[in-house]
Amino acid sequence: MNEQYTPPRVWTWDAESGGKFASINRPVAGATHDKQLPVGRHPLQLYSLATPNGVKVTVMLEELLAKGITEAEYDAWLVDISEGEQFSSGFVGVNPNSKIPALLDCSVAPATRVFESGSILLYLAEKFGEFLPTEPARRAQAMNWLFWQVGSAPFLGGGFGHFYAYAPEKYEYPINRYTMEVKRQLDVLDRQLADHPFIAGNDYSIADMAIWPWYGALVKNRVYEAAEFLAAHTYTHVNRWAEEIAARPAVRRGRIVNKAWGEPGAQLHERHDASDFELRTQDKLEQAE
Amino acid sequence: MNEQYTPPRVWTWDAESGGKFASINRPVAGATHDKQLPVGRHPLQLYSLATPNGVKVTVMLEELLAKGITEAEYDAWLVDISEGEQFSSGFVGVNPNSKIPALLDCSVAPATRVFESGSILLYLAEKFGEFLPTEPARRAQAMNWLFWQVGSAPFLGGGFGHFYAYAPEKYEYPINRYTMEVKRQLDVLDRQLADHPFIAGNDYSIADMAIWPWYGALVKNRVYEAAEFLAAHTYTHVNRWAEEIAARPAVRRGRIVNKAWGEPGAQLHERHDASDFELRTQDKLEQAE
Repeated sequence: MNEQYTPPRVWTWDAESGGKFASINRPVAGATHDKQLPVGRHPLQLYSLATPNGVKVTVMLEELLAKGITEAEYDAWLVDISEGEQFSSGFVGVNPNSKIPALLDCSVAPATRVFESGSILLYLAEKFGEFLPTEPARRAQAMNWLFWQVGSAPFLGGGFGHFYAYAPEKYEYPINRYTMEVKRQLDVLDRQLADHPFIAGNDYSIADMAIWPWYGALVKNRVYEAAEFLAAHTYTHVNRWAEEIAARPAVRRGRIVNKAWGEPGAQLHERHDASDFELRTQDKLEQAE
Repeated sequence: MNEQYTPPRVWTWDAESGGKFASINRPVAGATHDKQLPVGRHPLQLYSLATPNGVKVTVMLEELLAKGITEAEYDAWLVDISEGEQFSSGFVGVNPNSKIPALLDCSVAPATRVFESGSILLYLAEKFGEFLPTEPARRAQAMNWLFWQVGSAPFLGGGFGHFYAYAPEKYEYPINRYTMEVKRQLDVLDRQLADHPFIAGNDYSIADMAIWPWYGALVKNRVYEAAEFLAAHTYTHVNRWAEEIAARPAVRRGRIVNKAWGEPGAQLHERHDASDFELRTQDKLEQAE
């Protein structure tokens, strides 16, 4: 990095720069190729990948099904973002922002397009009347924390994770900047979870489902190999909560849907039926932690 | 920036680093001092500052009042974040994340605490039944774009704005990284606004109120002095929409509430009554653009 750098008057794209994910980062939106999305037999069609944002939604769907809500049956289709599948005409037609996860609710006509993981969680919570209080004051607390996650995690994933784990070089200034913010965020969560069993109070909600795949994974060293660097063990209440969430059977299922890496037994590239999980033993599901 | 930088095993805080806002960035949460918040006579108490996230809420409140909804009357109190007022015990009691804006709804007992600008917009939209469709499919579109803003703007403000305008040095790699993403985001908006008068379709909604203070300000060169660098004039549909929103009387009022910089006539440090705007002439309100 050149300390003497002076930005040009008008920025132009150098397709060579960009680090590990340079091939999928572009300064323009829209489709790069024509391809329709597959559609299965269930009311809900999910196009996703088991990143933290993807896992939020598969956990929610598995939690709904665990409550016996059969209208939440879904087909989960793998979108390989390293291959640019998020830029197909079909995917862009559901989510013009070309990010996973994206959901089509085919139980209505025309099908409703839902994108942004926070929006999908809210949509499903309202559609099925679960995991979000209806009483205004308690509902506000859950929504506060859901929006907190959506606005905070870019500093964790796009900031800290990128500069600590993925950028082509280790740059001191951005690493310090984002580390300080991520530690502050962990302390915010830790104080809240010191006083409450779940993030928005006494009940497990979509706020927990949104926060756990990012911050639960972080303290348990499942993303970025940064637990020691961040002194993650000091956030004791986040750790307690992360373990409780991870032990939920629906979470164990949801976290492996659309997963295409790691041990074969802890992957499920696509999910079209509850029986798809049967090949995974409980041991394998536990290893997925 | 040292190209040979190797992060330590465990990060420690160097309070000297951090650039322009180093004094208000900390790796821990919680209050730094005991101080109660002021409470006025109206049902809604807003603690804020006229940053883009603050303006979202004052625009919404002024839009509600413009519809004749007197229950949306509010007191807006200035929170000077450069003085650390967001770390008072009173403010942390409303928003444990210590970010403006924060809202207390005192029309119910106990008062409801609402934080995160996206959560406040949703709370007010649902409380008063305005600026958010109730029909599920159209509501989903507005929520998709509201969440899009909350998840995308950290790359604009915390990423691009910080490294282009505020960091102590100009670092090439982060500037390129965030410029590419911000241009992609502008193109996403431009394509959507090419086909729709407002971001979520035919109706002005909380999604517009969330996006305009960030991306409307960006293309009109009111933040970061980056319009030429980003070739902002090429996003013609974003420009058209930004001008239409800026011309709304409620927006002209809302944007100057809790503003403590710029020309005196285009500031309103606190707002406690509709008559507080009367000292500002229409000319001054237009200059606030």
